[in-house]
Amino acid sequence: MTDANAILERGRAAAETLNPGMEQALAGRYDALLPGFAESVVDMAYGRVYARDGLDIRTRLLVTVGALSALGGQTRPQLEVNIASARKAGASQREIAEAIMQMGLYGGFPAMINALNAALEVFAKEEEKA
Amino acid sequence: MTDANAILERGRAAAETLNPGMEQALAGRYDALLPGFAESVVDMAYGRVYARDGLDIRTRLLVTVGALSALGGQTRPQLEVNIASARKAGASQREIAEAIMQMGLYGGFPAMINALNAALEVFAKEEEKA
Amino acid sequence: MTDANAILERGRAAAETLNPGMEQALAGRYDALLPGFAESVVDMAYGRVYARDGLDIRTRLLVTVGALSALGGQTRPQLEVNIASARKAGASQREIAEAIMQMGLYGGFPAMINALNAALEVFAKEEEKA
Amino acid sequence: MTDANAILERGRAAAETLNPGMEQALAGRYDALLPGFAESVVDMAYGRVYARDGLDIRTRLLVTVGALSALGGQTRPQLEVNIASARKAGASQREIAEAIMQMGLYGGFPAMINALNAALEVFAKEEEKA
Amino acid sequence: MTDANAILERGRAAAETLNPGMEQALAGRYDALLPGFAESVVDMAYGRVYARDGLDIRTRLLVTVGALSALGGQTRPQLEVNIASARKAGASQREIAEAIMQMGLYGGFPAMINALNAALEVFAKEEEKA
Amino acid sequence: MTDANAILERGRAAAETLNPGMEQALAGRYDALLPGFAESVVDMAYGRVYARDGLDIRTRLLVTVGALSALGGQTRPQLEVNIASARKAGASQREIAEAIMQMGLYGGFPAMINALNAALEVFAKEEEKA
Repeated sequence: MTDANAILERGRAAAETLNPGMEQALAGRYDALLPGFAESVVDMAYGRVYARDGLDIRTRLLVTVGALSALGGQTRPQLEVNIASARKAGASQREIAEAIMQMGLYGGFPAMINALNAALEVFAKEEEKA
Repeated sequence: MTDANAILERGRAAAETLNPGMEQALAGRYDALLPGFAESVVDMAYGRVYARDGLDIRTRLLVTVGALSALGGQTRPQLEVNIASARKAGASQREIAEAIMQMGLYGGFPAMINALNAALEVFAKEEEKA
Repeated sequence: MTDANAILERGRAAAETLNPGMEQALAGRYDALLPGFAESVVDMAYGRVYARDGLDIRTRLLVTVGALSALGGQTRPQLEVNIASARKAGASQREIAEAIMQMGLYGGFPAMINALNAALEVFAKEEEKA
Repeated sequence: MTDANAILERGRAAAETLNPGMEQALAGRYDALLPGFAESVVDMAYGRVYARDGLDIRTRLLVTVGALSALGGQTRPQLEVNIASARKAGASQREIAEAIMQMGLYGGFPAMINALNAALEVFAKEEEKA
Repeated sequence: MTDANAILERGRAAAETLNPGMEQALAGRYDALLPGFAESVVDMAYGRVYARDGLDIRTRLLVTVGALSALGGQTRPQLEVNIASARKAGASQREIAEAIMQMGLYGGFPAMINALNAALEVFAKEEEKA
Repeated sequence: MTDANAILERGRAAAETLNPGMEQALAGRYDALLPGFAESVVDMAYGRVYARDGLDIRTRLLVTVGALSALGGQTRPQLEVNIASARKAGASQREIAEAIMQMGLYGGFPAMINALNAALEVFAKEEEKA
């Protein structure tokens, strides 16, 4: 049996790298209503999934951007977060846009267009910072 | 303006590499009902999307496998085709499985399990052939 | 206020025209578990929706075939029923296939292909009967 | 055969309890375009479904909140209405939040987060009124 | 083999009729990021699908409006574009609203209500222009 | 900070109660491909979600049955598992059927019918065993 605390800790490290301050932000917003929510999200999403071996983080994030694009505009905030994370993990703007364009074939053209708009917004913020 | 015939031709070449005989199979099945269907699918999916520059074909296929997994079991036949194509394009079994596992966070656990089952079936066929 | 019993009766007539025996079949299958289920389905789907004025039944059925195609293969049995109803209401095989092909742009290519397969199966049964 | 008018009337009563003024609001907004729309919605949703025996209204509303959460952010206005109705029917804030958190496993984490945000907004309005 | 350039040209003509200036708008917004994107959308959506024979454009657009309604509010901008196109192609406000109401049975009541709201907005803009 | 190992252990207990042998079955099927998969599923689904306080397990399962019904037939195997679990947790056949019928309003009528068919199959197996 693995040590579940070690998995939680690797999740904390991965979350902190990709989205600094995320656990605290989640805790501040949701834990009063749902005790332990923030820790559980970090453990599940980052410890049990993102921090796994076997697929590099850049590809993981491109797959996620593609899937959120195909699932449609209802996940817009999370799509933007993952596009920004994919940029941090080394994906180019073009690679992200190509992954989204490909989703026109699977999630439909409206989903593709809406996701490209999300990407353009994230890329525009990059330039503001630069 | 690009030459649309050249795009169709690069689509034919890409389709033939990934799924030999696909255009003819589609034509035999659907063109009597929908004139020109097979050519249009090859042109749109392969010429206008898969054969584009800017993202390597292995990553394109991993993104597609992820998205079809997240969209759920209704696309099972196409998911299997894309898993097999991803293998041809150099993705390992583990990488494909990791891309699918990640989709548990976005398409839900049933979608993840169903997609893993599709992958296991494709991988089992590989070993039969070997 | 309209007479709700009249709406139920026009629903019964519409259901009987499009799918003879449907209410009885539903009642036999579901009413022991869910009292009144068959009548409610006939009232809601046929009395309150399909039997309305303002859009001809042939177009209503083509719209339904399109939507079920776009929603994906999970509604396969209902898609087949509606394709058969659309044929009864005067839609040609080609029109149905075109409505489905168009859905490639909105529900994705796998959904389109799966719906075309459903249509081919319905059309093949027509020829068996002929 | 049941009396369809009685079903419509029990629907009117249920709608009036959960969402006072709803039928009139729907009629004012949609009936000029779609004659009889408001009455049909009340009959179908409340008379034929919500007012049924066999499952208490509090659980019905928790199930609905869960399903709308899983279906994703595109049903935000209706999700908020049903969260408020679930509160009226006796569900605690915690119960609603737990039902939503569970949906992370089925509709994905973005759908869960978006639905929790909807709940927080409804709960904040409660406190403003109090 | 068909001439792919002729298909692209018929697509351009169809796009220009239904949405004047669309290709240029798409190119201005997306082509720097995704070379050739606008042309590919026009070729695929209009040349390879909308401009096909076998189903009249008015019905094609009603089917599309229905499908986008059923797929849910995440495609709101595209739904509005297609409602406006359906009006141009000869569909009455009532026909469009009926096609949407029917989708309550397939995409659920929230999707139906959200799509009716989109239609009301498009119809209101018509009257402003008149 | 909570002890993540304790959460994993409560997950194991919950999984064993609702689905005896599940972790071993998952491990036997998936862990060679995805190291640690079975433990992660048990930890995430049962430890971090199902075993939480704040909502009784019977209601949790009714919500899940509703959501899987609304999401559509693609999750059929998991829907059947959850219907059987809801029965074990004390839900009546009628309550489960009512929760599903209600989903006709949110996931559409085909999803409702397909889920009722799943329920009928699970209930028939109960009687075989009895």
